[in-house]
Amino acid sequence: MEFDLIDRIRRHTDVHRDDVLTGIGDDAAVVAVPTGRELAIAVDTLVEGVHFPVGTAPADIGWKALAVNLSDLAAMGATPAWALLALTLPTPDEAFVDGLARGFAELATPFRLALIGGDTTRGPLTVTVAVHGFTAPDGALLRSGARPGDVVMVTGTLGDAAAGLRCLAEADASPYAALVDRLNRPTPRVAAGQALRGVATACIDISDGLVADLGHICAESGVGADIDAAMLPRSAAMLAHFHDADALQFALGGGDDYELCFTVPADRAGDVAADLARLGCGAARIGRVVEGSGVRVTDTSGESVMLARTGWNHFAA
Amino acid sequence: MEFDLIDRIRRHTDVHRDDVLTGIGDDAAVVAVPTGRELAIAVDTLVEGVHFPVGTAPADIGWKALAVNLSDLAAMGATPAWALLALTLPTPDEAFVDGLARGFAELATPFRLALIGGDTTRGPLTVTVAVHGFTAPDGALLRSGARPGDVVMVTGTLGDAAAGLRCLAEADASPYAALVDRLNRPTPRVAAGQALRGVATACIDISDGLVADLGHICAESGVGADIDAAMLPRSAAMLAHFHDADALQFALGGGDDYELCFTVPADRAGDVAADLARLGCGAARIGRVVEGSGVRVTDTSGESVMLARTGWNHFAA
Repeated sequence: MEFDLIDRIRRHTDVHRDDVLTGIGDDAAVVAVPTGRELAIAVDTLVEGVHFPVGTAPADIGWKALAVNLSDLAAMGATPAWALLALTLPTPDEAFVDGLARGFAELATPFRLALIGGDTTRGPLTVTVAVHGFTAPDGALLRSGARPGDVVMVTGTLGDAAAGLRCLAEADASPYAALVDRLNRPTPRVAAGQALRGVATACIDISDGLVADLGHICAESGVGADIDAAMLPRSAAMLAHFHDADALQFALGGGDDYELCFTVPADRAGDVAADLARLGCGAARIGRVVEGSGVRVTDTSGESVMLARTGWNHFAA
Repeated sequence: MEFDLIDRIRRHTDVHRDDVLTGIGDDAAVVAVPTGRELAIAVDTLVEGVHFPVGTAPADIGWKALAVNLSDLAAMGATPAWALLALTLPTPDEAFVDGLARGFAELATPFRLALIGGDTTRGPLTVTVAVHGFTAPDGALLRSGARPGDVVMVTGTLGDAAAGLRCLAEADASPYAALVDRLNRPTPRVAAGQALRGVATACIDISDGLVADLGHICAESGVGADIDAAMLPRSAAMLAHFHDADALQFALGGGDDYELCFTVPADRAGDVAADLARLGCGAARIGRVVEGSGVRVTDTSGESVMLARTGWNHFAA
């Protein structure tokens, strides 16, 4: 394409890596994987009006498009290395592209993630990112290793992004900036995922909601999970603005938090929480892995909590 | 996503590879690159109404989305290994997805290309594929090595896809099936690209049109190119339906042919043509690399040929 938007993006994301032998500008990138490392690869698409509201700042879109992908690498315990960016947009709007590239670079740079390729096309606003990261042989965190007796844990706090989305409907969303920021600028838990290698028996990132995503661990591991609603970590920002019942639903069913949900043997849970705390990442025990199937949530009186909506289904949205 | 279209696609594309350690179904795929191999990576997006006409058969869309990416690997001389597929579609139409997956698999299977990951989202019809292939160390074909005196060559015939696109405007396009097929089902020149390793000094695939893409080789190599219009390989199918002037414009400026354009030292051109012929791939000399810059096309009387349109600019389309 003559109007080379990808070159414009490259100028914002100037991470040099010795393992990038040919970067943007040829028919394909050429890279070298270090000896003794396996490669984790993920891809995710964000569509305007489906995965981010119309009117979202370009820099937030760029950040989020990379964040949701780095979150997949985090859930594998992988170390980020390279990304591809395929950007479809209605007009060749240079200011928009610059903003998007800035947000992308803000997140890429601290991880030393190099943008090695891309494509720009005309059409409805859609951003697809593919990321590549390294893992040690047999070192990737999978969804399939949870065992009855393991403790279920999550990083950070849950429900903030869903609460933030609700706040955007307000005439003045500024009092809820912290929640909206959690929606627009999720923090991929990359260091936490790496710290969980060799310890967590299963791991997933929470993109569709806790119950839905923990459900994937249960299905892949052939187990069930009992969750204690009172143990779910919820932010002061969310609790200041929402009733407890709403906040609980956000924490259980809200998507887009991009925290990690993982299982560890019960005798390792304390050490894991301490290790993650040293990384500046909270980690809370929220329940246990049990025989059976599916996720059951109970409140302090032992009653089952019903989920208003099981995860985000973008086809139903 | 609960409605797991990617799982549906996986069932159609069942290529087993030992180097895929974790395939579709976790947060990321995990793969192993063979020792002593570098990795070539490319990504391309097709948007409905921009890169393929509305109403294109789903199987043709699936084929083409992979073909344009394999063509990038071909232009690097790489051996295909793995792909990711990010599919955005307006409704979860299972018949459409099955058709698209069938076309994708038809092309993937003979190359033993494994689908290792993907994403399905709701939105305007858009298909993004990322492909990964292997090259020997320092063995990738780049755009930057053309030298004055080299011969410029192309595989196959030029202009058929653009001619096919023109034919689709006809009330009955069936007489032009061979041309329309070249538009909808391009053949990535993977074996030819591999045969050019160590011989071609520069290589690119023709996606935007010969003059535009050869122009990239000239710019990256710091050279110019003189092309003899009479030498351009044009198919009998195209010449049967179009005047010579139109056919020439298609051959020079039409995109979507996905043939390879490459440069070789003059004393190797004969051997290269013979090697490619053994692979069932035609290869024609069309001109020479010269000092200077830019692409100049001349007819038999030595007059410069003007290009009606320089390549496809999808933002201008």
